[in-house]
Amino acid sequence: MSDSWRAIPGSIVAPRGFRAAGVFCDIKRLGTGKGSDKGAKPDLALIVSDQPAAAAGMFTTNQVRAAPVQVCLERIPSGRAQAIVVNSGNANACTGPEGLRDARTMAAVTARRLGLDESLVLVGSTGRIGVRLPMDRVRRGIADAAKALTADPAGADAAAVAIMTSDTRPKQIALEVPLGRHTVRIGGIAKGAGMIQPGMSPTGRRPASGWGHLHATMLAFVTTDAAIEPALLQELLEEAVARSFNRITVDGDMSTNDTVLCLANGLAGNPPLRRRAAPAVRAFAKALQHVCHELAMMIVRDGEGVHRVVTVRVEGARSDAEADAAARAVANSALVKTSWHGGDPNWGRIIDALGYSAATIDPQTVDIGYSAPGSSRIVFSLRQGRPTRISFQRLCAEVDRPEFDLHIHLHQGRGSAVIHAADLTEAYVEFNKGDVSDPASLGG
Amino acid sequence: MSDSWRAIPGSIVAPRGFRAAGVFCDIKRLGTGKGSDKGAKPDLALIVSDQPAAAAGMFTTNQVRAAPVQVCLERIPSGRAQAIVVNSGNANACTGPEGLRDARTMAAVTARRLGLDESLVLVGSTGRIGVRLPMDRVRRGIADAAKALTADPAGADAAAVAIMTSDTRPKQIALEVPLGRHTVRIGGIAKGAGMIQPGMSPTGRRPASGWGHLHATMLAFVTTDAAIEPALLQELLEEAVARSFNRITVDGDMSTNDTVLCLANGLAGNPPLRRRAAPAVRAFAKALQHVCHELAMMIVRDGEGVHRVVTVRVEGARSDAEADAAARAVANSALVKTSWHGGDPNWGRIIDALGYSAATIDPQTVDIGYSAPGSSRIVFSLRQGRPTRISFQRLCAEVDRPEFDLHIHLHQGRGSAVIHAADLTEAYVEFNKGDVSDPASLGG
Repeated sequence: MSDSWRAIPGSIVAPRGFRAAGVFCDIKRLGTGKGSDKGAKPDLALIVSDQPAAAAGMFTTNQVRAAPVQVCLERIPSGRAQAIVVNSGNANACTGPEGLRDARTMAAVTARRLGLDESLVLVGSTGRIGVRLPMDRVRRGIADAAKALTADPAGADAAAVAIMTSDTRPKQIALEVPLGRHTVRIGGIAKGAGMIQPGMSPTGRRPASGWGHLHATMLAFVTTDAAIEPALLQELLEEAVARSFNRITVDGDMSTNDTVLCLANGLAGNPPLRRRAAPAVRAFAKALQHVCHELAMMIVRDGEGVHRVVTVRVEGARSDAEADAAARAVANSALVKTSWHGGDPNWGRIIDALGYSAATIDPQTVDIGYSAPGSSRIVFSLRQGRPTRISFQRLCAEVDRPEFDLHIHLHQGRGSAVIHAADLTEAYVEFNKGDVSDPASLGG
Repeated sequence: MSDSWRAIPGSIVAPRGFRAAGVFCDIKRLGTGKGSDKGAKPDLALIVSDQPAAAAGMFTTNQVRAAPVQVCLERIPSGRAQAIVVNSGNANACTGPEGLRDARTMAAVTARRLGLDESLVLVGSTGRIGVRLPMDRVRRGIADAAKALTADPAGADAAAVAIMTSDTRPKQIALEVPLGRHTVRIGGIAKGAGMIQPGMSPTGRRPASGWGHLHATMLAFVTTDAAIEPALLQELLEEAVARSFNRITVDGDMSTNDTVLCLANGLAGNPPLRRRAAPAVRAFAKALQHVCHELAMMIVRDGEGVHRVVTVRVEGARSDAEADAAARAVANSALVKTSWHGGDPNWGRIIDALGYSAATIDPQTVDIGYSAPGSSRIVFSLRQGRPTRISFQRLCAEVDRPEFDLHIHLHQGRGSAVIHAADLTEAYVEFNKGDVSDPASLGG
């Protein structure tokens, strides 16, 4: 790629002046929460900057907002934060005023342990809905995490594991980006798996235009040592999320807890980024977007039961909003998703979904084709509404890949949209039907 | 029930002056289509009235309209028809001008065989999308069916089987309804299974208010010997469909072929029904609605892979439209549907879906509960946004039934809606992922 960044190790502790930790405090009450549980997956993460940082956030637009989301929504407008405390195993959602108090207490305990102002601590949670946090365990976890904080990549690894729920692997990335004579670093961790079709906004309110359709909890935490104005950081994060996390769907369900937070502590020493049009800002924006895109794709690839990742590319809609509606109708159709699982290049189900979407279509002008990811060599199954002469076997080969692009051209206008989607498998159903004989196994 | 109708045998041939037939002509090209295939499931149905009848119809609002839907949309405005010819195994959708010609030819061949005017023949198709009908076989099938026409219930049985695709059993009903000194009869057959969330209108156009979300092919054919004005029949059919077929969802996918047709031939000799407010019309309307409701429920119960049927009842929304949006968000959530399959009374996934729906909700005012079908004895899992003290085991018992009602009260207004939904099972995925080594097995 022509972009001048390069990948580096360390994810969220790669940028200067960040430390992280992940510890086990048994939030799901799997065992005693004591020393005898050593070896269990960490479930509490802490991310801390050496100095107060510019802060930006994007939050679920679900009307049911988990308590930690409410706390972040109160604090992000200040544009400043220094630490993030996150637990998995419990979403702290639908827990009433007590839950909100618990989320504030998580921040307060973290602030006290770190000697920070409480208002500089942000909070995240993911897991089961409707159950109070075991605050005694959370307090112990925060104390342990504060002691374990380290700028060594092992700390970031532990944090990335601590935020996982049904994820099968941690999700991390870091880049080094040259900005003139300076070099800034951007790192990120994320979790996803189920209840994944984020539609996030900076205020938790939906845009007036609405979302196409919306719906896992996904969490992502991004750190950078760039010096940047908080308002500009928020603007760039919104742009990056709009093109990454808000463009993925695993199961079409939008969570109560979706959160992306970004801290920029300025320790790279670059001249502070202020104007969107400046070359350094454009370079930084592209790198930030790359971090968000890569983390978003890791979430789709590790979605519950996912065997195949399909990027749905709609062009030629009357507007970008109609393209988005068309892409989401296809990406969330149970029949289309099961056909992807089966490796069936079925265009009938695709055109059916387009036809019931909110996008205007004319079946006589629809093109449907396949390519390798990112390739423009499209093998069409349908042109202008008519099946092509490409053999069924050839089309099967196109969709018998772990990842492919589905190209749809409506020939109605200039609107376009891209949605990164997943197939629907028996494994998804098996996982999510849960085991009522073991309520602790049931997801949020 | 206080309604005075009674169930009778014979479904579509129960009303006076109707005959039906179902024959095998191998539209899917499973074999030779000759005598050697005897015993294969019929795939072509014919329903004929002894005299021209008042006719009404409701059709998919999918922008992709199968050819038979287009033919019906041209003919229903005349308010008159005498015969319906229907095939399964091929949807005749996305087949271009040739497909439309084929649909017209089906009607013309039927008309010729029966000695009717071509404009009095309506057409229906269901099956794979994008494949031309094998018209030689269809012609032979129509000829065979015309010879086999009978007012004996065996003819209706064969027709009900002929329209099945992935259905595991035929769906039939008939009622006798006293109207003053006269008795009229109403009979119906239907098919469903997958690609089921109908949103039908009389014109195939969406209402200005849109549908909440839309999406098997379902076909239903209703006959009656009532004498009724065509415009009133259309009005009553619209009402009945709005409260029955348009309120079910199996997988949230709206088909290109959804069709309900009703023929009323007047042979009961009742004074013609004309005014909506007349007592006889109200009695007839209720009976028609019962026929449609029962057929709709048979479709949900026999949906692909369905293990459980859940009726989602939303009350207290700001409007009926918001209640519908809330009910459909819950009814089509992959996570809610898998939890139903698992017998998991998970309210977190339900409130999550309510939160991302287009309905306005306040999580602090939401009630969620369960009851036996149609019962008002509700066992609540959530009241005013807080979990109740009902034990998990007790709640599990409520949802561990083949059918139950899910009650949701939003406490935001007076809007209400009911959606009949199904769980999402491994069997659904297994069935719909198909077998690409056998393209003939792949669904439409």
